[in-house]
Amino acid sequence: MLGRGIWSSVRQGLSRGLSRKVGAWALGEGRRVDIAGIYPPVTTPFTATAEVDYEKLEENLHKLGTLPFRGFVVQGSNGEFPFLTSSERLEVVSRVRQAMPKDKLLLAGSGCESTQATVEMTVSMAQVGADVAIVVTPCYYRGRMSSAALIHHYTKVADLSPIPVVLYSVPANTGLDLPVDAVVTLSQHPNIVGIKDSGGDVTKMGLLVHKTRRQDFQVLAGSAGFLLASYAVGAVGGVCALANVLGAQVCQLERLCLTGQWEDAQKLQHRLIEPNTAVTRRFGIPGLKKTMDWFGYYGGPCRAPLQELSPTDEEALHMDFSSNGWL
Amino acid sequence: MLGRGIWSSVRQGLSRGLSRKVGAWALGEGRRVDIAGIYPPVTTPFTATAEVDYEKLEENLHKLGTLPFRGFVVQGSNGEFPFLTSSERLEVVSRVRQAMPKDKLLLAGSGCESTQATVEMTVSMAQVGADVAIVVTPCYYRGRMSSAALIHHYTKVADLSPIPVVLYSVPANTGLDLPVDAVVTLSQHPNIVGIKDSGGDVTKMGLLVHKTRRQDFQVLAGSAGFLLASYAVGAVGGVCALANVLGAQVCQLERLCLTGQWEDAQKLQHRLIEPNTAVTRRFGIPGLKKTMDWFGYYGGPCRAPLQELSPTDEEALHMDFSSNGWL
Amino acid sequence: MLGRGIWSSVRQGLSRGLSRKVGAWALGEGRRVDIAGIYPPVTTPFTATAEVDYEKLEENLHKLGTLPFRGFVVQGSNGEFPFLTSSERLEVVSRVRQAMPKDKLLLAGSGCESTQATVEMTVSMAQVGADVAIVVTPCYYRGRMSSAALIHHYTKVADLSPIPVVLYSVPANTGLDLPVDAVVTLSQHPNIVGIKDSGGDVTKMGLLVHKTRRQDFQVLAGSAGFLLASYAVGAVGGVCALANVLGAQVCQLERLCLTGQWEDAQKLQHRLIEPNTAVTRRFGIPGLKKTMDWFGYYGGPCRAPLQELSPTDEEALHMDFSSNGWL
Amino acid sequence: MLGRGIWSSVRQGLSRGLSRKVGAWALGEGRRVDIAGIYPPVTTPFTATAEVDYEKLEENLHKLGTLPFRGFVVQGSNGEFPFLTSSERLEVVSRVRQAMPKDKLLLAGSGCESTQATVEMTVSMAQVGADVAIVVTPCYYRGRMSSAALIHHYTKVADLSPIPVVLYSVPANTGLDLPVDAVVTLSQHPNIVGIKDSGGDVTKMGLLVHKTRRQDFQVLAGSAGFLLASYAVGAVGGVCALANVLGAQVCQLERLCLTGQWEDAQKLQHRLIEPNTAVTRRFGIPGLKKTMDWFGYYGGPCRAPLQELSPTDEEALHMDFSSNGWL
Repeated sequence: MLGRGIWSSVRQGLSRGLSRKVGAWALGEGRRVDIAGIYPPVTTPFTATAEVDYEKLEENLHKLGTLPFRGFVVQGSNGEFPFLTSSERLEVVSRVRQAMPKDKLLLAGSGCESTQATVEMTVSMAQVGADVAIVVTPCYYRGRMSSAALIHHYTKVADLSPIPVVLYSVPANTGLDLPVDAVVTLSQHPNIVGIKDSGGDVTKMGLLVHKTRRQDFQVLAGSAGFLLASYAVGAVGGVCALANVLGAQVCQLERLCLTGQWEDAQKLQHRLIEPNTAVTRRFGIPGLKKTMDWFGYYGGPCRAPLQELSPTDEEALHMDFSSNGWL
Repeated sequence: MLGRGIWSSVRQGLSRGLSRKVGAWALGEGRRVDIAGIYPPVTTPFTATAEVDYEKLEENLHKLGTLPFRGFVVQGSNGEFPFLTSSERLEVVSRVRQAMPKDKLLLAGSGCESTQATVEMTVSMAQVGADVAIVVTPCYYRGRMSSAALIHHYTKVADLSPIPVVLYSVPANTGLDLPVDAVVTLSQHPNIVGIKDSGGDVTKMGLLVHKTRRQDFQVLAGSAGFLLASYAVGAVGGVCALANVLGAQVCQLERLCLTGQWEDAQKLQHRLIEPNTAVTRRFGIPGLKKTMDWFGYYGGPCRAPLQELSPTDEEALHMDFSSNGWL
Repeated sequence: MLGRGIWSSVRQGLSRGLSRKVGAWALGEGRRVDIAGIYPPVTTPFTATAEVDYEKLEENLHKLGTLPFRGFVVQGSNGEFPFLTSSERLEVVSRVRQAMPKDKLLLAGSGCESTQATVEMTVSMAQVGADVAIVVTPCYYRGRMSSAALIHHYTKVADLSPIPVVLYSVPANTGLDLPVDAVVTLSQHPNIVGIKDSGGDVTKMGLLVHKTRRQDFQVLAGSAGFLLASYAVGAVGGVCALANVLGAQVCQLERLCLTGQWEDAQKLQHRLIEPNTAVTRRFGIPGLKKTMDWFGYYGGPCRAPLQELSPTDEEALHMDFSSNGWL
Repeated sequence: MLGRGIWSSVRQGLSRGLSRKVGAWALGEGRRVDIAGIYPPVTTPFTATAEVDYEKLEENLHKLGTLPFRGFVVQGSNGEFPFLTSSERLEVVSRVRQAMPKDKLLLAGSGCESTQATVEMTVSMAQVGADVAIVVTPCYYRGRMSSAALIHHYTKVADLSPIPVVLYSVPANTGLDLPVDAVVTLSQHPNIVGIKDSGGDVTKMGLLVHKTRRQDFQVLAGSAGFLLASYAVGAVGGVCALANVLGAQVCQLERLCLTGQWEDAQKLQHRLIEPNTAVTRRFGIPGLKKTMDWFGYYGGPCRAPLQELSPTDEEALHMDFSSNGWL
């Protein structure tokens, strides 16, 4: 683990040169960082022997860096963060910081199961260059993760984080849907700037936008499958696994939505649903990485216990792209 | 039950004067009935002794008839159809037919558990004046309701129905989500014209629109909570419990969507989410009927085992409307 | 449907000659009917044209009648009751009454969605010869089926039933697990004598036995898969689909449990689990009926939308019996 | 994290003095370690400032050590292992090893999300004194955790573990139920000696015993709520949170089962269900620790985000014990 004492870490984090990324909150400007836009949740490349392949990571970043993304999410669920050691998690963020264009945002996943570990990881993420921390709900004790417990957890993290915090709800992985009332309460915290919601429930997303309208709180869609619908109800962007392979198209969908070209947006959205499902719910990260190989990025293997796709699955994956005109 | 022999019923249905509502399909015109628009799923009023109150039903219809709905859904889930006898189900449809404006569509829920009973009920619904049959998925044996079984069921019903059929998926009640592949197959049937989907998964709804785009197949949102998002992905209307009390507002939301006024649409949509949830998932039909009483319609009691709201629940229900400016 | 007025039906039911089956409750003896033992939930045979085949039903009953069952359950979930008309439901019960040995109990499923219809059906079941009514939880509006609603429902039914009532919880079909607190409250009703619990949660079953120990309340396991475990925690019998084909073996398991031969009981129980799962969760009623054909009973087709097994499924079903030495 | 290279760790683990605990497998004796019996899953005590309180841990162990347990499980779900750093996890095991009686077994939870980390942790656990590794299913990517993936994961871990491995399925925490077919395959691995199943599905448990009967594979119940039923279907013991407070009673229940005193066993089992549910599903680890305070052990606070019980919850917890005669 990172340090012996959380408080010393926090103190170090606050005293060290965090000036670059110290946002509106710390400076008391009263305006939050603008996170609107599209982000690919970057995958973590591994070598054949399951070591992190930092060179391939940088190569991917250089390619992705030419697209009009707002920034990059590192160690969202697609980054296989539960399979990385703490030092790997930090090293990956550090390398992405170096490899990515200076004008883009780096959102780093810093969620751990305990509040203490999450605070430490968040501080460390800031130290290695993250602009924003994106914090998944703790979930192993989901039966006890009441709104009160989650509010307590995120408040502590946001209080101690030197960088702005984005909430992250991803029920398919955590078995836990961050409740509306908890989000509304947390939206009032000056250092919590938004939420990435991967649940796909646009009724909930619309309600979040509505009930946080006085808080300058920003909602990001957690998937390209419901990106258009999310914009329609007031989301300001998306973190989309599919953007790792069809990045230009996802950004085009964003542009069509922002400029009110809803008919063209709808046509494009339709063609992205099956490919999106294929690289998320249907075939998971193995599917995403396989597709990256097809689209000129480095995908490579996952760490175990994630398994390679079977030939049959690979064929079905290919069909999900080709039948929509992308391969 | 309705008759002794399904085949004699069907034959009668086909021979009797069904000409008024015999649609495009029977006439071989090659165009399907246009079901685009907003529909309230009409509630069934009961007296204090739990008899169907047909007078109150007609009064409600007269009031609802002044709004720019495309038509009415009778015996959707909000109609308490599982609590009605077969003859009550038919009598309610018959009364609505009489009480409603002639130029509007009458969609009647005719789903039963068995294929045979569903066919009989569908034929009978046509006989008493339904323009379209809306057929909920059978669900008691949901563990065996594979796509193949559902395709078989709906194909049989559509083959024998003298009126067009709309599929109806409502997982909150049935525990069953009509799968995309089954819907896509069924969309090719000349007498199946669309689906009412109450699941709220707009990714699925967008995919349904996309994969049936060559079939002139129409998707209706099953709730006002995701109506805007549904329009954004290609739905053509909605069956909205909330339209029983905020009918003008739901129709206004439709108009804003259809005319591309997305910003205003979004604002209006936002204010409808909590009231919609209140009269559906949160407080159910007892909540809807209580609200109808507030808005000048007859709500009245539900049949048992549905219970009246507690005073606390009633207060929360009121708040969901008042906090959004509707009461 | 049954009649016009519930109250007239009830009155008729109470005044007509129900003396044979009027149990301890009506007689004020203070002892409840003893329902301990094994029951097959009888299937409803259909002809090739999907009519109820009453002859085959009687033939099956004659064969089953030679086994040491406590009685028969008619129109449990395996009876395809949701596919029968009201008159078919009653006629089936009536025929079973005639065909079965006089000294055995006839438990008839009388659950409907509305309280009123359930009361009417229960009264009618009594009139055609049922000894006990077994009443499934209403479920279409499961989101509103709080303990309070369920207590209200069952109390009304038990108040008006001329025969004792058994609660019936079958979450796989209803999506609803009758809560412990509701059962405990209902166990105090003098006309509610027990519960058939098909959920398979023996912790819950043990707790039900414990918390109703002063009420002379009887718990029946709803499946042969956990029959031994149920006896171990205090159940007094079981309603077991598997008893339609391996009736002697299920009764033998009962005897081994009752006489404390737990080792032999365990061995037998083990060999019944896969066959039991095969004719319930895995292949449903089509699997049960196919197996009946193999074991010398009439199985025959199910009503649509239930489908026949595929050859592959049939092979797997056969293997589940043969690999345990039963075929 | 533990080391740089998994293989060097493994090699070290195998060469270092693991002789004490190298079991039957490594010695090629052909007999597996006997894990039959009752185990409390030891909680991790924390100070008021959320540091691990090793003294209190040792005090608890000294008290628990006087009871006729087969041994102790350290870092099961009740050990808050997801909240501990790797070094804390190892230190806790090491301290328990010192504090516990020499003749008892130490089962240490070594599951991590990645296969590699799980192998490393398992090796390290062996190094600090664990007799057996108990390995929870990885779960963050549960959508991809097919039987094939899980078999691959556990096979790798068991291949490289210097100590015997016990599978651990706990759906309430992981959202994943280790499937029967995977367990049956894994039961053939010479270094996999059993499973701790906390799902409470005794039908599954019976089937596991049945289908692994030629493998000398041992099934442990994961909770005291279904301990009697588990013995009845062939389990050989239990890992029971409740044994942290009612250890003598849980051991007595074991003895009653093993000596065939089923009636007394049933009575005792009944009185343990509510207390058991209270310290597990209902109030979780905060409930368990609060109860430990009442029963003369050190419970103390949990690490955040787990919250203290409210006074109302505490009262309900007390009632669950007092109403059954334990307080």
